[in-house]
Amino acid sequence: MGSTSRTETFPAHTPAASQIFTTVLSHGPLTRLDAARRAGLSAAAVTKAVRPLLEAGYLVEDADEAARPALGRPANLVRVDGGRALFVGVKVTGDEIIGVLTDLCCRIRLARRVPLTDRATRAVLASAAGLVQELRAGADDLGVAVLGLGIAVSGDVDRAEGVVRYSPFLEWRDVPLAELAAMTTGLPVTLDNDVRALTIAEQWFGAGVGLSDFAVVTVGAGIGCALVVHGQVVAGAHGVAGEIGHVAIDPAGPPCHCGNRGCVEAIAGDAAIVARMREVTGRPVADTAEAVALAHQGVAGAREVYARAGEAIGRGIATVANLLGPERVIISGEGLTAYDLFAEQIRDSFGAAAFGSAAQCDVQTRPLPFEEWARGAAAAAIQSFITSTPTHRPGKG
Amino acid sequence: MGSTSRTETFPAHTPAASQIFTTVLSHGPLTRLDAARRAGLSAAAVTKAVRPLLEAGYLVEDADEAARPALGRPANLVRVDGGRALFVGVKVTGDEIIGVLTDLCCRIRLARRVPLTDRATRAVLASAAGLVQELRAGADDLGVAVLGLGIAVSGDVDRAEGVVRYSPFLEWRDVPLAELAAMTTGLPVTLDNDVRALTIAEQWFGAGVGLSDFAVVTVGAGIGCALVVHGQVVAGAHGVAGEIGHVAIDPAGPPCHCGNRGCVEAIAGDAAIVARMREVTGRPVADTAEAVALAHQGVAGAREVYARAGEAIGRGIATVANLLGPERVIISGEGLTAYDLFAEQIRDSFGAAAFGSAAQCDVQTRPLPFEEWARGAAAAAIQSFITSTPTHRPGKG
Repeated sequence: MGSTSRTETFPAHTPAASQIFTTVLSHGPLTRLDAARRAGLSAAAVTKAVRPLLEAGYLVEDADEAARPALGRPANLVRVDGGRALFVGVKVTGDEIIGVLTDLCCRIRLARRVPLTDRATRAVLASAAGLVQELRAGADDLGVAVLGLGIAVSGDVDRAEGVVRYSPFLEWRDVPLAELAAMTTGLPVTLDNDVRALTIAEQWFGAGVGLSDFAVVTVGAGIGCALVVHGQVVAGAHGVAGEIGHVAIDPAGPPCHCGNRGCVEAIAGDAAIVARMREVTGRPVADTAEAVALAHQGVAGAREVYARAGEAIGRGIATVANLLGPERVIISGEGLTAYDLFAEQIRDSFGAAAFGSAAQCDVQTRPLPFEEWARGAAAAAIQSFITSTPTHRPGKG
Repeated sequence: MGSTSRTETFPAHTPAASQIFTTVLSHGPLTRLDAARRAGLSAAAVTKAVRPLLEAGYLVEDADEAARPALGRPANLVRVDGGRALFVGVKVTGDEIIGVLTDLCCRIRLARRVPLTDRATRAVLASAAGLVQELRAGADDLGVAVLGLGIAVSGDVDRAEGVVRYSPFLEWRDVPLAELAAMTTGLPVTLDNDVRALTIAEQWFGAGVGLSDFAVVTVGAGIGCALVVHGQVVAGAHGVAGEIGHVAIDPAGPPCHCGNRGCVEAIAGDAAIVARMREVTGRPVADTAEAVALAHQGVAGAREVYARAGEAIGRGIATVANLLGPERVIISGEGLTAYDLFAEQIRDSFGAAAFGSAAQCDVQTRPLPFEEWARGAAAAAIQSFITSTPTHRPGKG
């Protein structure tokens, strides 16, 4: 690829070390005492864990001049040195590839998009490799090594195996994408479901900070969901989890591409809304932008299509709340552009279907552009780096 | 109560100590090395954690004579001393109270049942107190102290607060049962949802041993569920979790006591089956035993009632699998007596509604009498004891 290739690894392999690093990443700068308290570890464990991270330059410790006491030394604060390493995150949709270069603090340094005209694996891989190369050229300019690549794809994605088992929008089945991308780019690769990757970023830096149990629900082409339970993103024993889009809420509902009827996605996904809008209005609706326009124009029946979608999403969220009782549900995704058309129905049907105190769950919306999803992929790569578990390293084969 | 009352507490308060104790309880006898490996702790951490537990007699260490090497000393094995302490577990149903006296290994030493003729809080409390007293008399005969009481009730139960928020079968709302029982019995009390309590026992000793992600689904008067995710039972941020009975699968389905329509419980719970059986057959069906008999006799329409219930349960289980991807789902509950009538429909509708590799989840049945549920309540009490977190201690108020 022409870029500097280094096989640098995180200098600590204990759960305590990655826990402390993540705590400082998410909440820092922190005193060692605060870091210990937040991570539920002893001061001795923190001292032991931070030493190699300070030596390798991933963490730095500075005097906290702002909190200098009247007498004596100021307390020291530990923080992540963002400039110490770089990562690339890539989100693949059915239409384009979005890539970001982030630092070790997962701050975006560069962002690029390329359109996707061919969904064949080879074509997607070539486009993604081009994007990664461009971002790595930016890293070379900064003189800092890129230590990992994260790739986020929607659908049934097995992170542990590095395989896209099924992607409806790319029409892929059983593609060993992590291995292919590691061979093409020469970087350690982490592959994850796109909503799960986004949720790592939300847990570390977004609306999930400090929560042990929350969910991210995304509306748009698909209806996705990732769940954080007991502080960790749920991956599923067989790679499937968070499939809120395929919660079946109506046996008399429309057929779904998964083979069932009345799935949330078959009522509230973009394709379902566009198809239903054509049926109801009798007009040749091309995409969601046109569907939203018809609803805003007050065309007969158009608002009901969105109302029905909102009701389905609300029921799906209630199912998540009844089974898991999260503290918060964060609704995001490109479908939020139509949010005014179904917000009320989401809220009402969630309230009606939530059981008992599950209704206390805080449901909020949070618009996040695709660059934030690509940042989630970079967060997944950083997570793999600090836990020394990338899906595929170059040459691992 | 006349019984020996001691306020003995567990001598170690670190997460590592309770983790090691639970590992030995579930997998022991183990060498220290095996215990460390299974718990993911260092040998030093294990040595530090087991010392006070050995000193207090909760753990014992014996030479493993069976594995004596040709030369040198045999390896030592650590195990829980079951006889060191006793616990009482109580399961309250709408019709009876089932109580067990267990040792520290959660082995049942005594079991008793009393019928419940009055569901008022005071009456239930008096019956339960009588049962506990009888079991404590048994403990006195053994000369071992009872260190905690676990109570399991179905419905919306907040373990952290010790409150039954809503129990449909007892018709209770917001009853501070843990506090009342602690005052009445003088024991530290742990209150939990009955299926969650049963699941602790399944995780430690049953079909969940060694699994980090599994679910228990119970069929009978209610349709219940408890989820183990990342090795811990999910409690829900607001006390509600695992409400598979109120997963709504059909907006045109029968009304449910929760206020919605087409909940799994409104189709497959005992009351729903009996009511539907009366409708379909035109006969005065009194209870599930009669409903089962009609289906076995081949009365017209009777089998379809069970087929529909099985389909609803299978869809509920598929929803759990699609959202969480558990390794295993264990179906239990008194409704298993009719299992031959709906096993096929559960399997088929689960298979049809499971998304992608979620269908690989191992769905199995496991008949467990109510004494096992009471044992689950004792397991919850043991868990509180070793983590020093009983819901209520006597006099805490």
